Amino acid sequence: MIAVLKRGSTKADEQKVIELIEAEGFSAHPDTGAETTIVGVVGAAPDKKVNLKEKLQVMSAVEKVVVISDPYKLTSWNFKQEKTIIDLGDGVKVGGAELTVMAGPCSVESEEQMLETARIVKDAGAKILRGGAFKPRTSPYSFQGLGEEGLKLLAMAREETGLKVITELMDIEHIDVVCKYADIIQIGARNMQNYALLKEIGKLNKPVMLKRGMAATIKEWLLAAEYVMNEGNHQVILCERGVRTFGEETRNTMDLSSIPLVQKISHLPVIADPSHGTGRWELVTPVARAAAAVGADGIMVEVHPHPENALSDGPQSLKPANFRLLMDELNAIMTSLNSFKSREKKIAYE
Amino acid sequence: MIAVLKRGSTKADEQKVIELIEAEGFSAHPDTGAETTIVGVVGAAPDKKVNLKEKLQVMSAVEKVVVISDPYKLTSWNFKQEKTIIDLGDGVKVGGAELTVMAGPCSVESEEQMLETARIVKDAGAKILRGGAFKPRTSPYSFQGLGEEGLKLLAMAREETGLKVITELMDIEHIDVVCKYADIIQIGARNMQNYALLKEIGKLNKPVMLKRGMAATIKEWLLAAEYVMNEGNHQVILCERGVRTFGEETRNTMDLSSIPLVQKISHLPVIADPSHGTGRWELVTPVARAAAAVGADGIMVEVHPHPENALSDGPQSLKPANFRLLMDELNAIMTSLNSFKSREKKIAYE
Amino acid sequence: MIAVLKRGSTKADEQKVIELIEAEGFSAHPDTGAETTIVGVVGAAPDKKVNLKEKLQVMSAVEKVVVISDPYKLTSWNFKQEKTIIDLGDGVKVGGAELTVMAGPCSVESEEQMLETARIVKDAGAKILRGGAFKPRTSPYSFQGLGEEGLKLLAMAREETGLKVITELMDIEHIDVVCKYADIIQIGARNMQNYALLKEIGKLNKPVMLKRGMAATIKEWLLAAEYVMNEGNHQVILCERGVRTFGEETRNTMDLSSIPLVQKISHLPVIADPSHGTGRWELVTPVARAAAAVGADGIMVEVHPHPENALSDGPQSLKPANFRLLMDELNAIMTSLNSFKSREKKIAYE
Amino acid sequence: MIAVLKRGSTKADEQKVIELIEAEGFSAHPDTGAETTIVGVVGAAPDKKVNLKEKLQVMSAVEKVVVISDPYKLTSWNFKQEKTIIDLGDGVKVGGAELTVMAGPCSVESEEQMLETARIVKDAGAKILRGGAFKPRTSPYSFQGLGEEGLKLLAMAREETGLKVITELMDIEHIDVVCKYADIIQIGARNMQNYALLKEIGKLNKPVMLKRGMAATIKEWLLAAEYVMNEGNHQVILCERGVRTFGEETRNTMDLSSIPLVQKISHLPVIADPSHGTGRWELVTPVARAAAAVGADGIMVEVHPHPENALSDGPQSLKPANFRLLMDELNAIMTSLNSFKSREKKIAYE
Repeated sequence: MIAVLKRGSTKADEQKVIELIEAEGFSAHPDTGAETTIVGVVGAAPDKKVNLKEKLQVMSAVEKVVVISDPYKLTSWNFKQEKTIIDLGDGVKVGGAELTVMAGPCSVESEEQMLETARIVKDAGAKILRGGAFKPRTSPYSFQGLGEEGLKLLAMAREETGLKVITELMDIEHIDVVCKYADIIQIGARNMQNYALLKEIGKLNKPVMLKRGMAATIKEWLLAAEYVMNEGNHQVILCERGVRTFGEETRNTMDLSSIPLVQKISHLPVIADPSHGTGRWELVTPVARAAAAVGADGIMVEVHPHPENALSDGPQSLKPANFRLLMDELNAIMTSLNSFKSREKKIAYE
Repeated sequence: MIAVLKRGSTKADEQKVIELIEAEGFSAHPDTGAETTIVGVVGAAPDKKVNLKEKLQVMSAVEKVVVISDPYKLTSWNFKQEKTIIDLGDGVKVGGAELTVMAGPCSVESEEQMLETARIVKDAGAKILRGGAFKPRTSPYSFQGLGEEGLKLLAMAREETGLKVITELMDIEHIDVVCKYADIIQIGARNMQNYALLKEIGKLNKPVMLKRGMAATIKEWLLAAEYVMNEGNHQVILCERGVRTFGEETRNTMDLSSIPLVQKISHLPVIADPSHGTGRWELVTPVARAAAAVGADGIMVEVHPHPENALSDGPQSLKPANFRLLMDELNAIMTSLNSFKSREKKIAYE
Repeated sequence: MIAVLKRGSTKADEQKVIELIEAEGFSAHPDTGAETTIVGVVGAAPDKKVNLKEKLQVMSAVEKVVVISDPYKLTSWNFKQEKTIIDLGDGVKVGGAELTVMAGPCSVESEEQMLETARIVKDAGAKILRGGAFKPRTSPYSFQGLGEEGLKLLAMAREETGLKVITELMDIEHIDVVCKYADIIQIGARNMQNYALLKEIGKLNKPVMLKRGMAATIKEWLLAAEYVMNEGNHQVILCERGVRTFGEETRNTMDLSSIPLVQKISHLPVIADPSHGTGRWELVTPVARAAAAVGADGIMVEVHPHPENALSDGPQSLKPANFRLLMDELNAIMTSLNSFKSREKKIAYE
Repeated sequence: MIAVLKRGSTKADEQKVIELIEAEGFSAHPDTGAETTIVGVVGAAPDKKVNLKEKLQVMSAVEKVVVISDPYKLTSWNFKQEKTIIDLGDGVKVGGAELTVMAGPCSVESEEQMLETARIVKDAGAKILRGGAFKPRTSPYSFQGLGEEGLKLLAMAREETGLKVITELMDIEHIDVVCKYADIIQIGARNMQNYALLKEIGKLNKPVMLKRGMAATIKEWLLAAEYVMNEGNHQVILCERGVRTFGEETRNTMDLSSIPLVQKISHLPVIADPSHGTGRWELVTPVARAAAAVGADGIMVEVHPHPENALSDGPQSLKPANFRLLMDELNAIMTSLNSFKSREKKIAYE
């Protein structure tokens, strides 16, 4: 961290800045240039820097404070040098060599719908079944999900197909019931900064998938993961699902570059959700292919046997034939890129 | 709502669309032009339209669906023709003729800090004391607030000064304790779409201030208020606190036009928070003046007797002298604009 | 287009709206519902609708005006049912079956740099050489390009390697000199709505590549292409280069979904520029792969033999070894996806 | 500027960084901490730092480069310690103690319209007449303005009323004709980074008003002004006209905090355009009041005697009665705030 003093600051000003830095347990390294004096801050725990930064910003002699080191601890490669692999059992993993596909309807609607969809996505090669039983909806007047009834239908579909199950948890009250049925707990974009919820799931021994908030920076997203990990639960998957921009033709703007960016900073697996990222089924297939090519660890995609009857998100759901085509395309891309892995590593480090 | 059919759609396509609309309990009004066929949708409860829209969007013959009527019910002037005034007792109101000022530190830190600040803001003319006891922080390693200890200090300051108290509630678990001490419950930007929390406070008989989410549209913000009101609690204040944009010099971009915009749609009072809206104390004063001039029902502003020692948000806190100046400026603006009220109404309706 | 009347509008209000619509040469189709009256507008040239829309919005009885049909003419599949292929001669095409790669340095700097780079990118399989001779720079104090000297170096590199040349045109004054040397004229993001310039290049018989503006919607981008095409030049390539968002870790946010979206609306080829889209060389390779997988018609990428000596954009330039790896990966992806073309078409139309 | 080296960098890496810095004419100040080494850069002309920054970013040992000093020269208070006042003669000034109002129709349409509007705005207290003769329109099929004919009508209105005239210049070709009639040349948002145009107007002896680009940062906006001033023309007015965000209810999002922010950095006057900033006439009046209260040096507002017949921007034009009310409100606000000036200064510097 560096404090830049205002032009015309005196030696006394500089001294006050140094004293504050030292009082907070850091050491100060002033450097007086012809025009500007800067004071470098070194030492102490990174988590204390946030507070020091705010205090420095208030001092009348300080022009601005520039943070240099990243605020990450547990999510960072500095903490753990091996990629995190979430092992769900029966050979299903997220973060390993394979592209793991999670597929299913937006909402759980009925036994027939869940079983039919589960068979379709299983046959096509998906490993994990998605489906919402508790639904966050912008309007209180929209369909809010089947609740535990929906969770039971997910479990029934798992029973029959062997697929693992991911489903959304919206509040602390439902932690037990969701944990009873889910293999992975999903935290939605709207709850990415619901810190009470994050802390509670941090106490569980259960994989969690944390979606990026609608307007969350990379930093905020990773710090949300720190909230979970800081409580002890290190089984975190990140999910890029598009961010809000001025764009008016798609539901969100899929920020695919966030995936390699996060993978450079963090050992956590990152997957892509092109269904919410685009909101339009015609765009889901090309953007899912792009996510595979960009290096995502997995894809989450909405599939519905009859989208025109879906109770939510029909417009962004793939029909079975389109999903099968997508799976074949994803496999082809993964195969074609596999042979370059060693060359990629070699060049990156040269 | 209107469904626009694709070019080249047949009569059979049109018939399918009409059947779906009628099956959902609406009536269909097709209009076949030279190039395009559109089908108008009339009737039934507005809250069913969301689902119908999604179903129509999936049909292969439908190019797009355009929603015409607004999705608001309880927040709208159509529901209630008189402005909502939140009466906190002792003559303190939000939504009436006066500009109500809420002021105080970001975080409650100590007895001395709270009492000193409360006296300062009371003397300057504020009616409500703000102060966070439970703090939502981006990093789990930042100061998280004093908890109930902080609430007690707020109550102590109320006892001495007669100021009303507003403080943030972050989760359902703390509803009782926060209600015990607060006159107004604040829901922060990060929790604007925490629907479980919104539903719970909807069951209370306690005023609530709902901050606009970081990237929330006007529609999403008002629908969040609908979540609260739909449970029975109609004492809702809205608070504009800036939205996230590409801007890099301020913490957020204060969207002051949202205030008259919401006031056109809704009977709920709307206040402005220039401290979070700008994140820089030098900008707080001019933007607070602007909020008064734009017609806000109130202002929430951070004041700290010694910002350089603040445990959070020091850089955006006003010192006492600046706050007193601001209060005088706000009063001057309000007085100067008061005489135009009747002329404004006359012109608006001519 | 549809005009929605305010609640409580009278028959006389409705009549005035109808009269305006008819006076502008359209026909009006009123539809009176229980709560709202809407008036449909049919007929006349789409280009007159913009003006009618504005006039309707001003009427006191009109709540809002909803545009239904798209504003595109020449760029749309309705105008031309075959994909536009830009044929540059010698078998180099943009918009055909192949992924066309344009590569080279950000700025033309010297003969040695240009020839070395041209040989490298040619050997790796690029077909078109990029290089800026006139540079748009945010600061007037940054390097502004070599001007015609730079164009001559591009031509020299073309002479030796057989690569085609693309370079940026910044103003009308330099049209002749840029046309003399370039095979494709590039219009940069900052000039996307420089209408005087667009009209002038619309009069040329020379391919033009139009970059998406920093905050341009799909609609504005295609309408900028309409400006060019409306003057007679139909050889337009579109280029997605990232848009501006709240993201702070990348130069721009690459909006890859815009590529299939535009391809659905328009017959024009669309390419991707991951160098400007990300601003960081480590992200260029994965995002370029994603662009190929999303279906882009080409890729433009910055390559520099010695990025650390580049006069501009060094941080986003690939070194030769990384570029060769990327080319191999792109070829592998294209080959792997080729076999799905017919299946994709079949499913899309079923 | 500071270069932060990667963890694990060697002394040899550090040496290379120092050599580059010195080779570019700066001096290097390395500071080796326990975890990180940072190298401070001091000296040489600020305009050379952009290039050095890019070169450093490419070096393999460099983690990131942080710029500390601002890139402004001529626009900054460091260059000129007195506020710039644009004197248009006859007592009309922009940047002085008064709030200068520029008003008139979006487009010049006819003699009758211009004379009628000019009389109205003159009577209400405006000092400058606005009106577009050359119109930048998103679609090539929209009304493009009357050209020189329109300029003549503006001059005729000036002749009769004594108002000064501001009108938009869109391209270099029309500089002479626009200069012949205009007192202030307006550069629109779309041309804010049309550097060829900026350089040409920099050579004139004529005041220029530079609108903020749709997605321009404060830095880019001021650097655009540097382009003009660097050529010799220092008579620059800045104009905030709203920026593009995710908001869907207003044409743009008015960023009023940019006004005091720019005034802190620069001696140039800054005015507000609430008509384009909101796009809706009902919001123009409150936002114009807010602009006065925030400290703008002037307001530009669209007024039309018959908005329903306007050829462009009718929906955002005030009718005469609303404009008169606004002028009275603006005067009241300015009067009420005037008495605080000295107190504001005293507190700011204490």
